Amino acid sequence: MSADTDRHAMKMAKKKAARDKIMASKEGEKGLVIVHTGPGKGKSSSGFGMILRCIAHEMPCAVVQFIKGAWQTGERTLIEANFSELCQFYAMGEGFTWETQDKTRDIAAAQKGWEKAKELIRDPEIKMVLLDEINIALRYDYLDINDVVSFLRDEKPEMTHVVLTGRNAKEELIELADLVTEMTLVKHPFRSGIKGQKGVEF
Amino acid sequence: MSADTDRHAMKMAKKKAARDKIMASKEGEKGLVIVHTGPGKGKSSSGFGMILRCIAHEMPCAVVQFIKGAWQTGERTLIEANFSELCQFYAMGEGFTWETQDKTRDIAAAQKGWEKAKELIRDPEIKMVLLDEINIALRYDYLDINDVVSFLRDEKPEMTHVVLTGRNAKEELIELADLVTEMTLVKHPFRSGIKGQKGVEF
Repeated sequence: MSADTDRHAMKMAKKKAARDKIMASKEGEKGLVIVHTGPGKGKSSSGFGMILRCIAHEMPCAVVQFIKGAWQTGERTLIEANFSELCQFYAMGEGFTWETQDKTRDIAAAQKGWEKAKELIRDPEIKMVLLDEINIALRYDYLDINDVVSFLRDEKPEMTHVVLTGRNAKEELIELADLVTEMTLVKHPFRSGIKGQKGVEF
Repeated sequence: MSADTDRHAMKMAKKKAARDKIMASKEGEKGLVIVHTGPGKGKSSSGFGMILRCIAHEMPCAVVQFIKGAWQTGERTLIEANFSELCQFYAMGEGFTWETQDKTRDIAAAQKGWEKAKELIRDPEIKMVLLDEINIALRYDYLDINDVVSFLRDEKPEMTHVVLTGRNAKEELIELADLVTEMTLVKHPFRSGIKGQKGVEF
């Protein structure tokens, strides 16, 4: 072993010891409230990625799409075609709100989505519920943030994970959440005239 | 229609017109170099989410895991069990580098991963290649950033998407990339003694 390799091994052994110690202190398991927000990409796709991890571990789970309901997304196709026994999928929205131009209909769709969400979260068999783009409905006050926060705080079963996505997450939700990630846009190809593409955006 | 509903409809119609105009100008399609970096969660899971969108659209794709190879992740289980015809999956790493404590072996694993990655990217049938955690290998100089950047610039087929994940993405890579998202950590449950959990972290 050269001196360099030796130093490297010692440094890494120290890192491993420190990390093992930290990990050993993390014995707790609990159902998390997880928020993905910010203007960058990856909020929905990483929620979807977690749902597929659950499916891989055979944990029953569910998705409610609040906004993208009018699109036949890849996510929906894949889950309905392959994993409908493990994952329930509900598309409640009717496209982004500027597609519908009907506030009353948007509010009704959001409320219907939230009723379904509560039913799914209350179901003790379901281990993770993804509320995709719910932050958009909250931002426009189509749903009452206080209703959502108090339900998650008081009625969510202890071991159930709930993932809420969408930009402009409300402060009350961030305060309640266990795990919050802000997706920051560093560079985006739309700026260079590239449109949304299959596999990347939908 | 009430005056309020009317105003809302007008506002949304304006938004829709503006958005349609922007979208119409985005006619281009091209294979993107996509980078997910930053200390927050969601870098790998949203890469995985995009791979599953590709699978949903029946676009052949591939994953090379540079670091997490020793773990049997949910991602790998799901893809190998259900979609091995559409998605090739290679786990080249042997756990985080502080688990192995052997720099020579880590470098060899990273190089082997990169050789496989080049082969997959060159294959004109494959539409998306996810290089999961490659930024870690680049950060420790287990791979030469100049080799990676010049390969992506000069040899990547025009329509192929390549997704590179991992914290501390190098400046050279960010410069080359078309789409860069920084995942920022706002709040993390490890700080409150909660350990990594099935479905959420792996």
